[in-house]
Amino acid sequence: MPELATIEDTSPGALDALLAAAVAASDPYGALGAPERARCLEAVAASLEAAEAELVELAGEETHLSHERLSGELRRTTFQLRLFAEVVRRGEYLEATIDHADPSWPPAPRPDLRRVLVPLGPALVFAASNFPFAFSVAGGDTASALAAGCPVILKASPGHPRLSARTGQLVAEALEAAGAPAGTFGVIFGQEAGAAAIVDARVRVAAFTGSLAGGRALFDLATSRADPIPFYGELGSLNPVFVTAAAARRRRDEIVRGFVSSFTLGAGQFCTKPGLLFVPAGAGFEAAAAELASGQAGAELLNDRLAEGYRRSLEALARRPGVDVVLAGSPDERRVTPTLLATDLANVVRDAEHLLVECFGPAALIVAHDDDDALVEVASRLPGQLSAAVHGEETGDPTAARLVAMLAKVAGRVVWNGWPTGVAVTWATHHGGPYPATTSPSHTSVGTAAIERFLRPVAFQDVPDALLPPALQEANPLGIPRRVDGVAGR
Amino acid sequence: MPELATIEDTSPGALDALLAAAVAASDPYGALGAPERARCLEAVAASLEAAEAELVELAGEETHLSHERLSGELRRTTFQLRLFAEVVRRGEYLEATIDHADPSWPPAPRPDLRRVLVPLGPALVFAASNFPFAFSVAGGDTASALAAGCPVILKASPGHPRLSARTGQLVAEALEAAGAPAGTFGVIFGQEAGAAAIVDARVRVAAFTGSLAGGRALFDLATSRADPIPFYGELGSLNPVFVTAAAARRRRDEIVRGFVSSFTLGAGQFCTKPGLLFVPAGAGFEAAAAELASGQAGAELLNDRLAEGYRRSLEALARRPGVDVVLAGSPDERRVTPTLLATDLANVVRDAEHLLVECFGPAALIVAHDDDDALVEVASRLPGQLSAAVHGEETGDPTAARLVAMLAKVAGRVVWNGWPTGVAVTWATHHGGPYPATTSPSHTSVGTAAIERFLRPVAFQDVPDALLPPALQEANPLGIPRRVDGVAGR
Repeated sequence: MPELATIEDTSPGALDALLAAAVAASDPYGALGAPERARCLEAVAASLEAAEAELVELAGEETHLSHERLSGELRRTTFQLRLFAEVVRRGEYLEATIDHADPSWPPAPRPDLRRVLVPLGPALVFAASNFPFAFSVAGGDTASALAAGCPVILKASPGHPRLSARTGQLVAEALEAAGAPAGTFGVIFGQEAGAAAIVDARVRVAAFTGSLAGGRALFDLATSRADPIPFYGELGSLNPVFVTAAAARRRRDEIVRGFVSSFTLGAGQFCTKPGLLFVPAGAGFEAAAAELASGQAGAELLNDRLAEGYRRSLEALARRPGVDVVLAGSPDERRVTPTLLATDLANVVRDAEHLLVECFGPAALIVAHDDDDALVEVASRLPGQLSAAVHGEETGDPTAARLVAMLAKVAGRVVWNGWPTGVAVTWATHHGGPYPATTSPSHTSVGTAAIERFLRPVAFQDVPDALLPPALQEANPLGIPRRVDGVAGR
Repeated sequence: MPELATIEDTSPGALDALLAAAVAASDPYGALGAPERARCLEAVAASLEAAEAELVELAGEETHLSHERLSGELRRTTFQLRLFAEVVRRGEYLEATIDHADPSWPPAPRPDLRRVLVPLGPALVFAASNFPFAFSVAGGDTASALAAGCPVILKASPGHPRLSARTGQLVAEALEAAGAPAGTFGVIFGQEAGAAAIVDARVRVAAFTGSLAGGRALFDLATSRADPIPFYGELGSLNPVFVTAAAARRRRDEIVRGFVSSFTLGAGQFCTKPGLLFVPAGAGFEAAAAELASGQAGAELLNDRLAEGYRRSLEALARRPGVDVVLAGSPDERRVTPTLLATDLANVVRDAEHLLVECFGPAALIVAHDDDDALVEVASRLPGQLSAAVHGEETGDPTAARLVAMLAKVAGRVVWNGWPTGVAVTWATHHGGPYPATTSPSHTSVGTAAIERFLRPVAFQDVPDALLPPALQEANPLGIPRRVDGVAGR
């Protein structure tokens, strides 16, 4: 495909045309019925599946990820699109709520009030570099925004431009063929185009997956607009894992195996990589993990920019006082092997500012502790996390119980005797957390609840049935579950 | 009560102590069971009721509002507290969601995942001046934050400081007597204390009701923190009302009566005051409204600061080209009588920046139109509104139908053949809207859904039953409705 060989940054004129098209598409796309909108999502999934060989090939060239991994990620992506189609068909996400007029309602007579969620309008989505399918052009943010009824302007990751262009083409064509208005989907390239788009009045909501620095800069732009817009940034996480003394005694080697497998998965290029492992001092975790990790084959990182960032943050970590390199990987080579650092709890407390920072790549810091109270105290002072994990015993391990309760206060997801990598796409998923994990602690970017980010309520007071949206009409023509006079599920 | 005669601004030291106490109260208060937390809210309601005579007297002195109005508002306030107690007892607001482990879940085996909403932590609430009970110390923001399990630091309105101090004392005492930890509620005074609190790391969420300028300044502080926090500002609205030609022909005088009654209610000091009335040209609305409003008795505005602001914004409006004063009220006198201005649609389009601004007090602008398409076009270009209303005919009035659909895009609430003043406290209420109506279009500050502003999800992965919060334990010990494996209401 020579026409895709070079992808130029989107010009101001081209951006303007895409935004104008998104605005024009906004009302008709948002007004599509549930079956039609669901079919749009399913058409995108089918189109990606049909092009799997081509897309995986292209993604492999641009990201150095294996075809096996990429095929699996593509399946996740199409599953996600189809799950959101199901969400749209069910209609529960509309939160349709009806309160009939009630002259005896306290403290004043109540009019007929009906509320439903409606799409916010054109959404700007910033793709991540590390999941070229599942968090990129047709990823979870796009799927949930389209499901909500919002046109999407997708800012492509610089890490896989050709794949982004090709996927964008497929998405736009599939949507249009399925009946979505032209302009429902567009892809833009380049940092300047992204920065111009986020302050454009036509963009009504934005979502981002990426680095703390990049996400914060965009959050600042979104909130400093003359008309601030909701900005949902997923900015990363340390995903600390806590091993209690009781668990270490019984399952040290099993935990070490799980840890090494998790922090090196995808060459550590996941926002859920366990970057911190708290272990009992003197239990031999450091040496055992170093030995196991030293046998790992190296992997090429996603791109040069990311490899350079990894080298720099690893160097900075390794230079801190009290930090030992227990396994020196090969951050400077093309194929990067894992690095393991070690320190103790007192040092983490002393130097939190420099040690509690994300290092995106196959590295982790093992922290030795010998005081359960101090461990729980450190857990309570962690910055906001996407996830945190506890390895403990179900009985006779009070520290484990205290850690679970404490970590629920700082993390969006608490994992028991498992690892943070791997985020299921389902109803109960929460992939979010207090800042700096995200810029909006009340929202998730994975799972069915992700659709909530792109909606706002509108209430209708005493509006005649024929003028109400179908979701609120008395006869319930959509057959969706509604809350009526305070009772859910009617 | 001589001890309340002077209320000093809260000192930095006193603020620090209140915030420390709120942090200390946060975990134990958030961990109270539903019955205990519900009883806290009901205790506050009972305490306010018991002190009604004293509170209404105090409020009357500080706000110039009638005892009848104040007693009604106190009933609304206690109803609101009790409704949130019911919300807490029902437990649906927790959105408990359980997905059992499923090895066949696509695209990868699913672990056991359970999600529940938890309180965000200490909430900072900025009280409004115009509702000394319902949107003040023990108002909707406080009730919904307390219901969610968040301690509240309440920044008092400068408009009723003694009432705020006394109400705060009653709330804190009632909460403590009902079993809430000390520090669950505190009141602060002074702009500096408010500004210091909103950038304090111990405050985890903030809510505000008041002016665009004040709300925007606080939003900017909240979002520019090192760790930005959710800020829910309700900043005001024009609440435009559209009268179609068909409705004007049949019901002009009835509409005029409703309009005059609504825009002068509470001397126009409501965020839902209809500040704009679009009417067919030549139908005589201006003269009829002026005549009716000229018979209204004057009313003292809430306070001097507000009266001065009203005078200034009214002067600025009246000075704009093409604006006629059809009824000159008495903005400079102690008892202010209503003012009515008039212009036409073309002038509103030409001078939107100056004419589409809130004028807080008993004034409104009547806009004559003679082109339905232009009217719908103007509706589509309005800034975000809390509410908008249409007076039309159910049949044979296509403009009315178009307006309802269009206004749902710019307003949080669309009213049919009614008036925006009066916001029912119920399940379907939405008191919100796109910026500048609020800083968060997806949230409401009135009604049961207001609790969502103070919560965030946390997911538990493979966590043993005994370590889960009761809301997520397999046996459902709380007996709350949950979504299990994708099916709601289990």
